[in-house]
Amino acid sequence: MPPIAARLGPHHDGSSLYVGDSTPRLGDRVPVRVRVPSGSGVDAVRIRAIRDAEPTLVQAKRDGGDDHEDWFTADVEVHNPDTRYRIQLDRGLQGYSWLNGTGEHYRDIPDAHDFRLTTHDPGPDWARDAVVYQVFPDRFARSGASRELPGWAVPAEWDDAVIHQGSQTPLQFFGGDLDGIRNKLSHLKSVGVTALYLTPIFPGGSNHRYNASSFAEVDPLLGGDAALARLARACHESGLHIVGDLTTNHSGDDHPWFELAKQGPDALERSFYYMDKNGDYISWLGVPSLPKFDLASQELRDRMFGTGDSVVSRWLRPPFDLDGWRIDVANMTGRQGEYDHGREVARLIRRTLDEVRPDSVLIAEYTSDFTADLDGAGWQGSMNYAGFAGPVWSWLQSAAHEKSVQGNPNRTARRSGQSTVATMREFAAAVPWKVAARHWNLASSHDTARIRTIAGTPEMVRVAAGLLFTYLGTPMVFAGDEIGLEGTNGEDSRRTMPWDRPEDWDQETLAVYRDLIAVRHAHPALRRGGLRWVVQTDDAIGYLRETADERILVVVARSRWQGALLPGGLVYQSAETLYGEVSLVVDGSGVLIPGEGPGVGIWRLT
Amino acid sequence: MPPIAARLGPHHDGSSLYVGDSTPRLGDRVPVRVRVPSGSGVDAVRIRAIRDAEPTLVQAKRDGGDDHEDWFTADVEVHNPDTRYRIQLDRGLQGYSWLNGTGEHYRDIPDAHDFRLTTHDPGPDWARDAVVYQVFPDRFARSGASRELPGWAVPAEWDDAVIHQGSQTPLQFFGGDLDGIRNKLSHLKSVGVTALYLTPIFPGGSNHRYNASSFAEVDPLLGGDAALARLARACHESGLHIVGDLTTNHSGDDHPWFELAKQGPDALERSFYYMDKNGDYISWLGVPSLPKFDLASQELRDRMFGTGDSVVSRWLRPPFDLDGWRIDVANMTGRQGEYDHGREVARLIRRTLDEVRPDSVLIAEYTSDFTADLDGAGWQGSMNYAGFAGPVWSWLQSAAHEKSVQGNPNRTARRSGQSTVATMREFAAAVPWKVAARHWNLASSHDTARIRTIAGTPEMVRVAAGLLFTYLGTPMVFAGDEIGLEGTNGEDSRRTMPWDRPEDWDQETLAVYRDLIAVRHAHPALRRGGLRWVVQTDDAIGYLRETADERILVVVARSRWQGALLPGGLVYQSAETLYGEVSLVVDGSGVLIPGEGPGVGIWRLT
Repeated sequence: MPPIAARLGPHHDGSSLYVGDSTPRLGDRVPVRVRVPSGSGVDAVRIRAIRDAEPTLVQAKRDGGDDHEDWFTADVEVHNPDTRYRIQLDRGLQGYSWLNGTGEHYRDIPDAHDFRLTTHDPGPDWARDAVVYQVFPDRFARSGASRELPGWAVPAEWDDAVIHQGSQTPLQFFGGDLDGIRNKLSHLKSVGVTALYLTPIFPGGSNHRYNASSFAEVDPLLGGDAALARLARACHESGLHIVGDLTTNHSGDDHPWFELAKQGPDALERSFYYMDKNGDYISWLGVPSLPKFDLASQELRDRMFGTGDSVVSRWLRPPFDLDGWRIDVANMTGRQGEYDHGREVARLIRRTLDEVRPDSVLIAEYTSDFTADLDGAGWQGSMNYAGFAGPVWSWLQSAAHEKSVQGNPNRTARRSGQSTVATMREFAAAVPWKVAARHWNLASSHDTARIRTIAGTPEMVRVAAGLLFTYLGTPMVFAGDEIGLEGTNGEDSRRTMPWDRPEDWDQETLAVYRDLIAVRHAHPALRRGGLRWVVQTDDAIGYLRETADERILVVVARSRWQGALLPGGLVYQSAETLYGEVSLVVDGSGVLIPGEGPGVGIWRLT
Repeated sequence: MPPIAARLGPHHDGSSLYVGDSTPRLGDRVPVRVRVPSGSGVDAVRIRAIRDAEPTLVQAKRDGGDDHEDWFTADVEVHNPDTRYRIQLDRGLQGYSWLNGTGEHYRDIPDAHDFRLTTHDPGPDWARDAVVYQVFPDRFARSGASRELPGWAVPAEWDDAVIHQGSQTPLQFFGGDLDGIRNKLSHLKSVGVTALYLTPIFPGGSNHRYNASSFAEVDPLLGGDAALARLARACHESGLHIVGDLTTNHSGDDHPWFELAKQGPDALERSFYYMDKNGDYISWLGVPSLPKFDLASQELRDRMFGTGDSVVSRWLRPPFDLDGWRIDVANMTGRQGEYDHGREVARLIRRTLDEVRPDSVLIAEYTSDFTADLDGAGWQGSMNYAGFAGPVWSWLQSAAHEKSVQGNPNRTARRSGQSTVATMREFAAAVPWKVAARHWNLASSHDTARIRTIAGTPEMVRVAAGLLFTYLGTPMVFAGDEIGLEGTNGEDSRRTMPWDRPEDWDQETLAVYRDLIAVRHAHPALRRGGLRWVVQTDDAIGYLRETADERILVVVARSRWQGALLPGGLVYQSAETLYGEVSLVVDGSGVLIPGEGPGVGIWRLT
């Protein structure tokens, strides 16, 4: 088969090439730029911007270009904190089309996927440039400190198999701790990660610690407050950031606040929890050990995320100096039946971070749709299950794979590359670009099967990693993915790192991770560039990441495919291979992308 | 060409066949039903419902069916006031698909087009069953009363051409009045309309009166308060409802509140209007004569839409007894830059209606996207420019047509039937069914070109009317459309009714309107039934409207097309023609829909 024609249509996105890089203030006029390849059949360009929910249409002016494309510019006033706009392309006798975040549309469409200018700061630069490494403390590394185990713990040897079904699952205790993590920071550095994200470190009667019995101290089984201070200092000395994990949705049922709440209607803390009409407490998904917080309580708000000595504030301050929070069950936080404080709570937590530690990160857990909440005013971004992990899994999964994220069915068929891109694009387009650029993209986590098990082979893991380290957003690696650990569901994936079993390390996968991360760090366009989809076939996906200074082409394929011809032979003079075995042929007809696969290719076009 | 195969896939919508007809209360468990035609390849059906922003998945059970289809049911708890859900269809080796309001999807999707169960009452039954007739009072009929004209008025004879450009446009005064309307109610009755909607009747220095100088009296030029009471009584005696038009977004600059506001910072009324940092007032779209209300003011809220003697309340009470309001510029109401009270204001106005006159209607003007605001808690529905008028115009428009609704470009090419349906469906799916069913669908209004001018010929007006009177929602007819009046933009469309020029009445179009309205009134499925799309081609659009008692097929075509074969010859035994010249052939192979066109066919299948 001849190669397909890779298409480069008129384009706009929220990256610096098109809207600059600064955060606008209310009332600013932001020059919005649109590029239109020559021969697109576009006669005129207009910007449709929304002011107080009313559309306005402004003519864009040609503002530069060359033989192969024209640039158009119009000023959009940031009249509202979240100002939507889209592009109208006048196509003469064909009428107009609309260009929004999901592409070009030859009919009228709602505003949901409009581009957006927001006055909300997207968060610190380090977070945008980060590669995050997720550690589940019980399973990463032991320091060797000897500690007395609590009654609930079912002790395990480091090399024991993980219990991932049944009542012992949360109780099996391997004894990883914070000093253990500190001793292994050199591994993180060698992989190239720049931020450590720890799942909960507060005490709870479980190995996962999401059922906190206190937010006031670090679990002594992890080494206590002093060990966290040591770990944070060591991270910062190594140039790593460190991020905590906080559940604002519920506490454990042995939390002192809940103990007090149970004492009766007069207890102040009773207002911290939702009670039903029978006076019984409401728990998270009906799990009795997890009573749900009623975040209408001002006192609870003050204690949890006020700007004073709250939980959120305290751990961001010395000597702990956490660089931010990942918020557990963020989607449900503040929501219960008729009450919905969800977005308000997100904004309040964000306000505290902005005041207490303005260079910190705030990422929300959404295992499914995040689009209704992520307007940039609250959470800076979310864990990107819906817009990255899910579509990547369904494109690459092996027949044997079972998904295990809640709310998804257990099994699906492989989807096409077109479907995969459609889902990735739809979720990205429903939030401001600067939020999508802060999502934590992931291939697996402590709540899912491992990417190695999902994808089935190291070759397919490489394809997933090719997307993870080049797609819009911040990559998050679940510790162990980089050496090919397996796991059939979230609990099974919480396997210990086999430090003493080098034969169990998949060195090929480790090299893939290191190399791809190094390419990401070396090329700002992969971290901060725009994103233009150029290849969408069943088996191959490709996009350009571009800044004013560089243009990088990424193509990943899950199998051999027919290849593609990217037009613009006059534009691109040469292609430097940044990753992969395949060289591109650049000549007068364009850039020929061979149909190799499975594999990953990253090239710089000049 | 052979007829295309009309497709009947698995289906669900918000109509009584699938979720019952009552409004659920919080905590209710609503049986949700899904129908799956035999041979669809569906192994199992699950319902994915959202609770506190977290998805849950419930298995549906087979619950009846016959040789040609299976029904599945699962209970969905109305855990939140607005509970979203969608259908998962297990398709065996193909994996699962999702069925939501925009159709079936073979990939993961956001929740935006999920079905929704809401605890908000949708409004009175009469509004759902209504055919609304819009009257622009200055142009409908004169009573002959002699009145002194104000200085601003540019008097016109009834047969004069409308001035639709330039400074005299809002000043040209024809002198239609409320008693004039009352004298013509027999025309409304003969057409079959059941509700009269009047554009503003408060005084303003213009013929359109959207720049109110008072909300406390009916314009004496229209006959004053007494004339309104007479008209309302006459309407009710004739079995017509009567709906007013209120601007909550701004007043005229000669309104006494604004006169007081201008007197300085100490005036109570100053807080009624937005002032910029220089102390200058902010006006609607920069038009100085329309100062914009600041609806943060509690006093203004009380005066405008409190439950006491407010503007909203007063005119719903005797002797005026308006049956509800259409809210002008509803999209912008309460919105200005950083302030957004829009949805709150909608809920407050709704609360007042629910208290003062629970059987009243509340419809919001949105000339473009209404989807973000229409959750059922505030406005009952909106004027459906985006989800009906726009797509219908772009499907049917003649080459010479210019669109004139703000925010839309002046000209587009004709769109295909597929694009038309995609837009109609997307807008409908983004709001609860019971909101979509209350929208006022329209083919033209006082703010647009006339459908006769847009569509170009009486034949094409018939096609538009075929959609208007059979599609989901409440049809609204702009007075004069039914006799073929023309107009190239909103102002030009405000032509006088040619009562004394019968030769200017398009009797063919009048018969079309009367007949289609009669069919609608005679068949509850056209007012209250579900909606299943069955034909989508370039030139033809068709759907089924179904209740438990009847199944009606509607097909409209803008030209000859290849026809369609609707499967199910064993299901449908016969087809009774309710409207149109074409009979259907029903035999063992199915229902053959001939490719006639342009035209409208409505059949009852039994």
